[in-house]
Amino acid sequence: MSFNMFGQSFRVTTFGESHGPAIGCVVDGCPPRIALSERDIQPFLDRRRPGQSRFTTQRQEPDAVKILSGVMPHPESGVQVTTGAPIGLLIDNVDQRSKDYSDIKDKFRPGHADFTYEAKYGLRDYRGGGRSSARETATRVAAGAIARKIMPEVTVRGALVQMGPHRIDRSKWDWDEVARNPFFCPDKDSAAFFEDYLDGIRKKGSSIGAVIEIVADGVPAGLGAPIYAKLDADLASAMMSINAVKGVEIGAGFGAAELSGEENADEIRMSNQGPKFLSNHAGGILGGISTGQPVVVRFAVKPTSSILTPRRTIDRGGQETEIMTKGRHDPCVGIRAVPVGEAMMACVLADHFLRHRGQVGR
Amino acid sequence: MSFNMFGQSFRVTTFGESHGPAIGCVVDGCPPRIALSERDIQPFLDRRRPGQSRFTTQRQEPDAVKILSGVMPHPESGVQVTTGAPIGLLIDNVDQRSKDYSDIKDKFRPGHADFTYEAKYGLRDYRGGGRSSARETATRVAAGAIARKIMPEVTVRGALVQMGPHRIDRSKWDWDEVARNPFFCPDKDSAAFFEDYLDGIRKKGSSIGAVIEIVADGVPAGLGAPIYAKLDADLASAMMSINAVKGVEIGAGFGAAELSGEENADEIRMSNQGPKFLSNHAGGILGGISTGQPVVVRFAVKPTSSILTPRRTIDRGGQETEIMTKGRHDPCVGIRAVPVGEAMMACVLADHFLRHRGQVGR
Amino acid sequence: MSFNMFGQSFRVTTFGESHGPAIGCVVDGCPPRIALSERDIQPFLDRRRPGQSRFTTQRQEPDAVKILSGVMPHPESGVQVTTGAPIGLLIDNVDQRSKDYSDIKDKFRPGHADFTYEAKYGLRDYRGGGRSSARETATRVAAGAIARKIMPEVTVRGALVQMGPHRIDRSKWDWDEVARNPFFCPDKDSAAFFEDYLDGIRKKGSSIGAVIEIVADGVPAGLGAPIYAKLDADLASAMMSINAVKGVEIGAGFGAAELSGEENADEIRMSNQGPKFLSNHAGGILGGISTGQPVVVRFAVKPTSSILTPRRTIDRGGQETEIMTKGRHDPCVGIRAVPVGEAMMACVLADHFLRHRGQVGR
Amino acid sequence: MSFNMFGQSFRVTTFGESHGPAIGCVVDGCPPRIALSERDIQPFLDRRRPGQSRFTTQRQEPDAVKILSGVMPHPESGVQVTTGAPIGLLIDNVDQRSKDYSDIKDKFRPGHADFTYEAKYGLRDYRGGGRSSARETATRVAAGAIARKIMPEVTVRGALVQMGPHRIDRSKWDWDEVARNPFFCPDKDSAAFFEDYLDGIRKKGSSIGAVIEIVADGVPAGLGAPIYAKLDADLASAMMSINAVKGVEIGAGFGAAELSGEENADEIRMSNQGPKFLSNHAGGILGGISTGQPVVVRFAVKPTSSILTPRRTIDRGGQETEIMTKGRHDPCVGIRAVPVGEAMMACVLADHFLRHRGQVGR
Repeated sequence: MSFNMFGQSFRVTTFGESHGPAIGCVVDGCPPRIALSERDIQPFLDRRRPGQSRFTTQRQEPDAVKILSGVMPHPESGVQVTTGAPIGLLIDNVDQRSKDYSDIKDKFRPGHADFTYEAKYGLRDYRGGGRSSARETATRVAAGAIARKIMPEVTVRGALVQMGPHRIDRSKWDWDEVARNPFFCPDKDSAAFFEDYLDGIRKKGSSIGAVIEIVADGVPAGLGAPIYAKLDADLASAMMSINAVKGVEIGAGFGAAELSGEENADEIRMSNQGPKFLSNHAGGILGGISTGQPVVVRFAVKPTSSILTPRRTIDRGGQETEIMTKGRHDPCVGIRAVPVGEAMMACVLADHFLRHRGQVGR
Repeated sequence: MSFNMFGQSFRVTTFGESHGPAIGCVVDGCPPRIALSERDIQPFLDRRRPGQSRFTTQRQEPDAVKILSGVMPHPESGVQVTTGAPIGLLIDNVDQRSKDYSDIKDKFRPGHADFTYEAKYGLRDYRGGGRSSARETATRVAAGAIARKIMPEVTVRGALVQMGPHRIDRSKWDWDEVARNPFFCPDKDSAAFFEDYLDGIRKKGSSIGAVIEIVADGVPAGLGAPIYAKLDADLASAMMSINAVKGVEIGAGFGAAELSGEENADEIRMSNQGPKFLSNHAGGILGGISTGQPVVVRFAVKPTSSILTPRRTIDRGGQETEIMTKGRHDPCVGIRAVPVGEAMMACVLADHFLRHRGQVGR
Repeated sequence: MSFNMFGQSFRVTTFGESHGPAIGCVVDGCPPRIALSERDIQPFLDRRRPGQSRFTTQRQEPDAVKILSGVMPHPESGVQVTTGAPIGLLIDNVDQRSKDYSDIKDKFRPGHADFTYEAKYGLRDYRGGGRSSARETATRVAAGAIARKIMPEVTVRGALVQMGPHRIDRSKWDWDEVARNPFFCPDKDSAAFFEDYLDGIRKKGSSIGAVIEIVADGVPAGLGAPIYAKLDADLASAMMSINAVKGVEIGAGFGAAELSGEENADEIRMSNQGPKFLSNHAGGILGGISTGQPVVVRFAVKPTSSILTPRRTIDRGGQETEIMTKGRHDPCVGIRAVPVGEAMMACVLADHFLRHRGQVGR
Repeated sequence: MSFNMFGQSFRVTTFGESHGPAIGCVVDGCPPRIALSERDIQPFLDRRRPGQSRFTTQRQEPDAVKILSGVMPHPESGVQVTTGAPIGLLIDNVDQRSKDYSDIKDKFRPGHADFTYEAKYGLRDYRGGGRSSARETATRVAAGAIARKIMPEVTVRGALVQMGPHRIDRSKWDWDEVARNPFFCPDKDSAAFFEDYLDGIRKKGSSIGAVIEIVADGVPAGLGAPIYAKLDADLASAMMSINAVKGVEIGAGFGAAELSGEENADEIRMSNQGPKFLSNHAGGILGGISTGQPVVVRFAVKPTSSILTPRRTIDRGGQETEIMTKGRHDPCVGIRAVPVGEAMMACVLADHFLRHRGQVGR
């Protein structure tokens, strides 16, 4: 990955800060003749949009996406389709409420990137977090919506599977539940518990971490590559590039460290639909290449460092001081990472689909 | 990462299988006038070399590296230095004992990449694992040795911190212990325990997973970038590209999911040496950019799937069958991943050092 | 170069068609703390803007550029500077006069990319030329303006040196003349001649080719690399990527084929300012690396194929037919290529400056 | 292109100097199941090999290529085929006659890259030219041989079409002649003339430039891309990356500057074989995409600067001096560029073939 671009054959370049007039991205390498309009993208942005419950920041952004290029009405059908040219996407920033930044302008918030931006660039955009704003993820979600259209046979879904120390009961997993609670939680009972749990954290002005799981069904066997372009290596990079993510695992993940070879190796039988694995510790990837089983990725999101408790820090001049972060924030930023993780999975799969087709031709 | 190359400014391209005449790599982008000879590389290869204890495969390879290009005696000092040209490295394959592959030629070993290679390429190199052979990692270790010379102020060290369900006692961590036991284990008591534990697994013809930790001390603040070129995203990709790795985490990692914002945000004070963090949950990286604290990465290695217990599988013709993997194998492949993880850390840091210097100029 | 992106360390990704709402680009990798506002970019766009004489298309576009991201007021000086984040640039399309495309919708214009787009993508955006519209070059000019700010010690200038078979008199070269005629011609007398000459062509509804020369003064010795990242290789690619360019040469160029080794090799003497070359057949580049002399590139621009004379062609259905291209067009598109060539030179130099600083560190 | 690598989907990374033990390259991204052995590559190396006539350097190198990886016997047919893994190629340096470099060690040869290497890297490998040695081109020729196997329907051929001021008579073009004279000249009479002409130059210890033309027949319509990944932009870069090349043109090239729109635009008719162009001023490329006509590229090669006449220069210490280059050299290095230009054309086409198949899928 290079600065603000990711992907090889399906390339996404993003730009923009929450403070400026707009954010956006360029999607390059999309195949031609794929039906595409704003209506294919907007629902995913709406799902990511904050302010839909008391558990996400109250910043209000319509996040209305505009396609600036790369599409035209098909000469025969009249349906708007991609042309093979780069697709420019723009999302205006609307909710730029004028704000007093004097408190954070000169102090480094612990756990934020304030100190490191300053160390790297010699200055930092303290207005709204600059490039580290969660707002940047809207452009990923838009790109992910296009990626999904390249592989319509693949279903990419995400869910919150842990909040703080509380794991969901995986035996109660129901994908339909995900849309019915503000946590993208597939376990109804855990969702009910999280409501109280997170309210407590929110009222204290505190925050908590989470674990997100993304599953792609319908991925054909053969995507990926053996060594540095492993499907799992690219997924690890893609998920780790999301704000606040501190860990990524595939299939059994860190649990695989505790398994014996007998337990871990997924046995294979034949079925009417072809080869069938009896388990999926591999998370759908062996040797960096997809097996045809569901591709399963989990990532850990740290708690936001924007909290009401004062924390010790220093200022730009090197003086010791304290800081307390007021304002609109998420008690569990992991929640909003669910649609973002889905988008990154979709982009990585589309990229590898095109790369595979290039090298192998089928 | 692209196929068999990784890095942007410090680029490593590897090739070779354990079965062919040699493996090797090309290191491109190395700064000129850095002292470099085989003696700088060989010790790291020796450390990775299998067959040094009964706990790693008994394959015997001298792994003698040859520098084919990119160096010359300095016109004044006569010391051999880099020229800025690509550095070609070659390691001959010596121990190619003639072997009967008839058993695995047509059967897919569960947990191995046999099925996926075949699905992708329509054939696979069953001789010695092809590109998925652990042998490929020798070239990474060689490249890592060069990377270390670019940033001599940085110390990269690795250790095994968990074998199966058994975690080391971190209060007993002693880097000097790492060289004194066959497990790269920094806790003397755990190392003694692992000796018996792994002997039991080895004698059963079974295998077990492990967790490896890599720490880089002396990394200056400012390496990395905010979004897709995050230092942690590149580390995640680099570690996940190592054979058998199923999870990667930075700093508190998955543990961060269980923390509150107050616990997780590392507070900052001033010291005589400049800013000083009171903890390092961030693992030395905030917003994708190094903080100046130690960079800490952990990764989980699954147990090798080469085990003596027969496992159910299918063959190339789609017939159900069983397979048992005989031969020279590692009861815990995680052990040999330690020098490899160190090398990947060194390469990623060198790459980001050069990228940073390019953009920011200091 | 990859699809719609060019550069390695200074990366420009462009998007947009003349028919859509806007065109734009993302400039990635720009160093931080460089003063930058729209006022640094707009003058270059104004210079490229068509409709300023009767010799360029009468399409009227204000080409007002907006910076969407990557800048902020410097915390101390208040001057707007780059932050190191990607710089999003947007230029609205204003003059989208509704037009009847029925004539060209189904016919392939000879000399245009109509046939090849259709062959590649299975459809083409016949509205305004799609990505092949000269309008795309506005985004390059905007990016080039930023590139110039990275190397303020370098002066990049361009001139038209040939129109049809008529070469300028190089002994009359005066850079100041370039701004005084509508042809960017440095020879006053040739400019006067071209006025009549091109009027004749314009009135016939015909068109003519041209040769453009771009010169960069002040380039330090040492930019570039020996083999595939040669400065001249990147310049060749950059110039050839401009619409209608069919040839590129460096220094003596094709003339070097006619020279002897004695004539061609530029001898070196010492001067008070250091090494001094007695001639510049090399065009400022030896072995792919800059010598410190002016970098000199020339490129040939073919005549536009939009002409009033009917030409034989086929339609999408494979039927033979004729076509005549009406509408607003340039009798010599080479004229408008001058600011574009300058921009590409500036971008390539900035890219190599950052790449060199990364590898060599000074 | 990046340092020592070129291509996106078909990637070639080269290393090695003429002075070291070996040169080589890694070909990455090659499709699997393509028959490949040394016998497919060696004939192209033999054609490039110097010392076959008195008109090329008398350095004697067998240039025997070894395939180190990426191939295996096909499980059914037993024929050696590619596996999809990277193909490592090695060519030993044999003729390293011990030589006295004291004369050039400290002096910059005019027209050579001595001065620029020193300016860039702070030192240079004066032994045999370092990376700028024509020897590096052997690895390109080897990679080109593999590229040809990816598109067997395409025929790539090259010829010398001008030596010094003397152009061949294109009406006498006979591809069969190319193999019958030491100049790769397709015009028998010009070849006879060149024999005397070049002998005169050789005996004087002088040198002369040349123009080479490369033609690819059988390229399907649709390869390439509109803007920065134009087929002609990549060809320009590829040819300009060859030693001593100073200019590149496509189709009518610089001649297009002198044409009117009516003359330049190739008209289209239908034939039994589909669309048929009545001329090929475009050189088989429109808008960066192949038309299905022959792809035609020409490039100018400067005379080698290794000549017997003393030339004025400076030394490393900045003292004025003279230098005369003794030793084994080519009176017209353009001759040996013919197989190299073919190889670069083959590599660019293979790369675009795979990229096109990735994006468009057919």
